[in-house]
Amino acid sequence: MNTVYLDHNSTTALKPQVLQAMLPWLTATAGNATSRHVYGRNARDAVEAARKQIADCVGVQASQVVFTSGGTEANNFAIKGIAANLAPAQLLVSAIEHPCVSRPALALAWQQWQVQTLQVDANGVLDLADAEQKLATRTGLVSVMLANNETGALQPVAELAALAKAHGALCHTDAVQAFGKLEVDFCALGVSAMTISSHKIGGPVGVGALILDKRVDIAPLLHGGGQERGLRSGTENVAGIVGFAAACKLAVETLKTRSATQTSLRGQLETGLQTLGATMFGQQASRLPNTSFFAIPNIEGETLVTALDKAGFAVASGSACSSDSTEPSHVLLAMGVEADLARGAVRVSVSDSNSEAEIQGFLKALQQEVKRLKGLSAVAA
Amino acid sequence: MNTVYLDHNSTTALKPQVLQAMLPWLTATAGNATSRHVYGRNARDAVEAARKQIADCVGVQASQVVFTSGGTEANNFAIKGIAANLAPAQLLVSAIEHPCVSRPALALAWQQWQVQTLQVDANGVLDLADAEQKLATRTGLVSVMLANNETGALQPVAELAALAKAHGALCHTDAVQAFGKLEVDFCALGVSAMTISSHKIGGPVGVGALILDKRVDIAPLLHGGGQERGLRSGTENVAGIVGFAAACKLAVETLKTRSATQTSLRGQLETGLQTLGATMFGQQASRLPNTSFFAIPNIEGETLVTALDKAGFAVASGSACSSDSTEPSHVLLAMGVEADLARGAVRVSVSDSNSEAEIQGFLKALQQEVKRLKGLSAVAA
Ligand SMILES: Cc1ncc(COP(=O)(O)O)c(C=O)c1O
Ligand SMILES: Cc1ncc(COP(=O)(O)O)c(C=O)c1O
Repeated sequence: MNTVYLDHNSTTALKPQVLQAMLPWLTATAGNATSRHVYGRNARDAVEAARKQIADCVGVQASQVVFTSGGTEANNFAIKGIAANLAPAQLLVSAIEHPCVSRPALALAWQQWQVQTLQVDANGVLDLADAEQKLATRTGLVSVMLANNETGALQPVAELAALAKAHGALCHTDAVQAFGKLEVDFCALGVSAMTISSHKIGGPVGVGALILDKRVDIAPLLHGGGQERGLRSGTENVAGIVGFAAACKLAVETLKTRSATQTSLRGQLETGLQTLGATMFGQQASRLPNTSFFAIPNIEGETLVTALDKAGFAVASGSACSSDSTEPSHVLLAMGVEADLARGAVRVSVSDSNSEAEIQGFLKALQQEVKRLKGLSAVAA
Repeated sequence: MNTVYLDHNSTTALKPQVLQAMLPWLTATAGNATSRHVYGRNARDAVEAARKQIADCVGVQASQVVFTSGGTEANNFAIKGIAANLAPAQLLVSAIEHPCVSRPALALAWQQWQVQTLQVDANGVLDLADAEQKLATRTGLVSVMLANNETGALQPVAELAALAKAHGALCHTDAVQAFGKLEVDFCALGVSAMTISSHKIGGPVGVGALILDKRVDIAPLLHGGGQERGLRSGTENVAGIVGFAAACKLAVETLKTRSATQTSLRGQLETGLQTLGATMFGQQASRLPNTSFFAIPNIEGETLVTALDKAGFAVASGSACSSDSTEPSHVLLAMGVEADLARGAVRVSVSDSNSEAEIQGFLKALQQEVKRLKGLSAVAA
């Protein structure tokens, strides 16, 4: 395809090395990891080697990794599974969580949990003072993401986890966007549970993991054959798990160089955006190195995304992970951005596979489309 | 690998044609199906084409297919999701269900549901009279599998669904083992929900579906981005879904010839088993064409499976889908088989990729191992 892909936070291509690692498990020698014959034992060995690899990447022991079908399941598992084993109390989630954290939280509101939203500042960063104040009310669980998928803004999760601990609450973090783009050390964060997902780091879709502190008492979401030490039943997706581990390893090994390339590409992008009069969102926050979130005043994000797609550039408007809707981004609203401006939001998320020429091409196309669309609206007015 | 694989009910190899169908979605052109750019639209088109293909295979409309991460998730979703939208009442599950049906049912017992077990006869077939009697108590949901994974015994699901309907109860069936081995027509069964799984029919692990009657009101198990019309959030596993559809199509197209081959291979196997003095389980029931379940009296199933594995034949003892345990099969106990004999159970499940020579080789190895093990126990006695 000729279209330049600049939407890597939404999903990023499976790395060829990852596919190579998976292929032996997509052929006739693949067994069920619970079977006791040689096919089963080989599958089991592959799953356990992958678990160890992933554990190493986030600084935990293999037994702390529970495989799931993705980030969404891991987040649902964390929120619902931890809450299930606690007495109902307050549940705190930030205003900028992905819906696969905020909606499970709302589902608990029907089960006697008091769900409260933690505020963010104008840069989309968690307001720790607000969190501390809310933690004064008896709280069972607090969940705040490590990096936001729209702005890329990093959140003070370690600080929050320390506050939570001091107030007797458990802390979960959705590290789906952070993992693979930054160093992520589970123990340094001090959280009780952390979500990661394979397809955001060059692994296959349909695999993720919840990393757990050993002391956490969590109820399974999927009951059945008792796989994953009873915490997540279902035939193990051996190929997916092996691919996830290969992607983790690769992501960690190449982190520094990828990050440098991304920062440089993003810098060029944002210099160009400034010239075009774009309003930047969350630019003053510590951010993921690859994410830019902006609006061109008076142009709808949807319209721009469609126009850019026709011009050969794939970008996102708001979060591409949510269902079809033209509501302005909840992240921007939480940051105090006016709804009208928020509707103009466009996200560019690069990878190190992108080139400077692609960024320059994008800026040129953007300039042309903005000119054309402003011309159209001038005619209409 | 030289070991002959005779454990196809546990998992069966990905078909080469299925891998071919998946490969384009395991490369750089794969997008997130919720994205609106060309990569996203292509992914969406592939998912919707797959949905239509699978719907056609079971005789429903595309909108009745909800993709999940596998049979386990689909069964959990059916049981918990349907129950969530009903007033607590009686919940009926058969004594021979896979744990991914019976354990979600038990989980509901904590939520004011009265869980009752439906009996089976000595051949492992549901006792409809028992079911009718139990349905006299106000029942919300009844779940009985279409074919058992251990014995292969087919269950009278259409008759049960009619009874359930007459008593105002909804009916779910786990068709994971039946689908791909028999013709399965959702409407003819008259159930409200039906589970199918990809890796049991030559598709990839980690994908399944719940087929739903349009009138069923079901609550999601995974909340988030709102994919699958809000019923199952999570980034769509495009490669997996495309592979699942390819496997479904292939399974349906080749059903008759595969079934004939399997029946013939199984016939040869069972003739040989009879000569060896094996006790057959469920042999008088209408069965899947590929499954044999038997015991050699006074030999542990586990021991035999290990010995056969060393001799180059991969078979299962009881259900390979459950976690490690030496409990006798719950299916055999429900059939009234003595625990001692049940501990001897071995399952052979063939596919049309197996040959007559492999079956003969298996029988020869079995004879040798039985002789050797009996000799050992004679010495020990
Ligand atoms: C921050 C965040 N959390 C969770 C998810 C969901 O993960 P998955 O796509 O693996 O279900 C996404 C993206 O989809 C995300 O951006
Ligand atoms: C009858 C039956 N139902 C459900 C399952 C679970 O399906 P999956 O392996 O896709 O989770 C299995 C096998 O694992 C099975 O045999």
